Amino acid sequence: MNRTLITGSGSCIPPVIKRNADFLGEEFYGEDGIILPSPTGIIIEKFEKITGIAERRYATSQQNTSDLAAIAGKRALDDSKLDPETLDLLIVAHNFGDVASTGFQPDTVPALASRVKRLLDIRNPNCIAFDVLFGCSGWLLGVMQADAFFKAGMARNALVIGAETLSRVIDPFDRDSMIFSDGAGATVLEYRDAGNYGLLTSSAVSHCEEEVRFLQMDGSYNGENNPGVKFMKMKGKKVYEYALKHVPVAMKECLEKSGELIGEVKKIFLHQANEKMDDAIVNAFYGLYGMQVPRDILPMCVQYLGNSSVATIPTLFDLVRNGCDESHRLEEGDLLMFASVGAGMNINAACYRYTER
Amino acid sequence: MNRTLITGSGSCIPPVIKRNADFLGEEFYGEDGIILPSPTGIIIEKFEKITGIAERRYATSQQNTSDLAAIAGKRALDDSKLDPETLDLLIVAHNFGDVASTGFQPDTVPALASRVKRLLDIRNPNCIAFDVLFGCSGWLLGVMQADAFFKAGMARNALVIGAETLSRVIDPFDRDSMIFSDGAGATVLEYRDAGNYGLLTSSAVSHCEEEVRFLQMDGSYNGENNPGVKFMKMKGKKVYEYALKHVPVAMKECLEKSGELIGEVKKIFLHQANEKMDDAIVNAFYGLYGMQVPRDILPMCVQYLGNSSVATIPTLFDLVRNGCDESHRLEEGDLLMFASVGAGMNINAACYRYTER
Repeated sequence: MNRTLITGSGSCIPPVIKRNADFLGEEFYGEDGIILPSPTGIIIEKFEKITGIAERRYATSQQNTSDLAAIAGKRALDDSKLDPETLDLLIVAHNFGDVASTGFQPDTVPALASRVKRLLDIRNPNCIAFDVLFGCSGWLLGVMQADAFFKAGMARNALVIGAETLSRVIDPFDRDSMIFSDGAGATVLEYRDAGNYGLLTSSAVSHCEEEVRFLQMDGSYNGENNPGVKFMKMKGKKVYEYALKHVPVAMKECLEKSGELIGEVKKIFLHQANEKMDDAIVNAFYGLYGMQVPRDILPMCVQYLGNSSVATIPTLFDLVRNGCDESHRLEEGDLLMFASVGAGMNINAACYRYTER
Repeated sequence: MNRTLITGSGSCIPPVIKRNADFLGEEFYGEDGIILPSPTGIIIEKFEKITGIAERRYATSQQNTSDLAAIAGKRALDDSKLDPETLDLLIVAHNFGDVASTGFQPDTVPALASRVKRLLDIRNPNCIAFDVLFGCSGWLLGVMQADAFFKAGMARNALVIGAETLSRVIDPFDRDSMIFSDGAGATVLEYRDAGNYGLLTSSAVSHCEEEVRFLQMDGSYNGENNPGVKFMKMKGKKVYEYALKHVPVAMKECLEKSGELIGEVKKIFLHQANEKMDDAIVNAFYGLYGMQVPRDILPMCVQYLGNSSVATIPTLFDLVRNGCDESHRLEEGDLLMFASVGAGMNINAACYRYTER
């Protein structure tokens, strides 16, 4: 039976390391525009305790989102050994396009996928290149799109990349800015006779009532900073409550659709939002089955990479798959789950039976 | 046999009419930053002769791209009589997100599809809402994506919208600014037993070598205007040559894939770029068959609506389908072609057998 297989992965972890201590000189303001009363050192300490984030990576001033995407894409293609000229689809998920390090104006024309195709020097016109915007869940939606094109007989090979430079859209006066980071992750997908391996099921939901405002663009908390420029703003508590309510249920529905048993799940690749939230989601997911969370089920990289939106899952998957995370290993036949949540608000999930092939 | 059917269409033609004479007070500069020697009146006269554009529409300062998209989407849903809560997909194609009339900062978080879902008050979480970026060819790519989801058994109903406010990303010192306009067009798609009707074939190509720079963001031709802000810039001659070389061939390949004969084609809904280019494309297309262009084959609205990117085809289709263009009529069983070209560079085409159902 033909199924969608991940035959290659790659990531780009940009070189600039920004440690929590590097924020000590900042002044953080509240939503009300008033400077926060606690000393910055205390705010950072509390931040690290809740989010688990100790450091994060930023792109260099010369790198743009499409550059990170191309690096990750090249590595995934090399890993897969697929001839890039045989790609039918090149999908780039992002939320802000290319944002120059010197400005706040996102640049999305041409689409990032066109730029990445150029940077990878892929010339086959039949490799169609487009971008998808679906909040932090964009990479997994890109996988679902490729899977749909495959099943419809409209494509056989795809490169799906998630890339973002959030360091360029955050408000330096907002403590939430410490959450976000830059990066890119990529996977090569092929539609092949795969036996019991490969993508078993996927699903997605969009909640767009009051949720549409949980992550949105708004002015700096410091009214004197760049008036007229908008920054990415997150209603953290709302996002947390939303994710905890809806993500475990979405994961359970996706697993049930696959016909696989909860005890079979070996790893969960969850969007790296923050440690506390991710732990709570996985706790609640197993709670739906009346179970404790098994050991070694949840690879994490948010502690040293921060939240790089669409890039987190493919990056984390690549780190584990290619042996860069010593505490986790993938074995032939492992049942994996992917799950993501982000601006929109959107959630998606997938069940995947792993193979080295 | 199940096929993708267009069961509803709608458009939003924004209210602000901008006539060519309204540009008489402008000063136009060349790519070299030097003011053009001809008087503006002569430049406008020549512009109208080449492009056929006499006037165009802009959104009001209170309207944003997602507002136009929601108006067009509502009309398409009303036209289809589909219960909006049964939609599986809400796809918005655009290139710049929401751009406030007072600034140059595109806003794409949350995705426009999330905003449109909110504006349409669609609450079903299983209606997943995402954006696609594929240059001016985005709406037709959205149709192809919906078709892929349908054929893969992942969706049955979709709302696909193309919406843009190009008036907010153009350089007022560039005469090309007179080409571009604002608008939104939408179609409801359903996957049904359709006999010989509906979407027969679709195809797309992406040329991203030197073509990646034919439409891109760059500084104003007037160096003193908003330094640091980028505007949409078009290498018009390159785009023209590219389109003329590749679009007719792509259309022919798509038609051949459908197994239908050229003589069967009744209408061609072509991206409304400019009159001369569109005429040349259709001439070259029929030229590939050694034929003259038949009468009444090419509906056009660029003369009074300008080039509103992703919005042009669904808007034009809606105008003809709903009797707002008296010079064209659709009949049951008509073979239609859709074809588009835009930033990337990307081209796509589709063959569709029309039915009122």
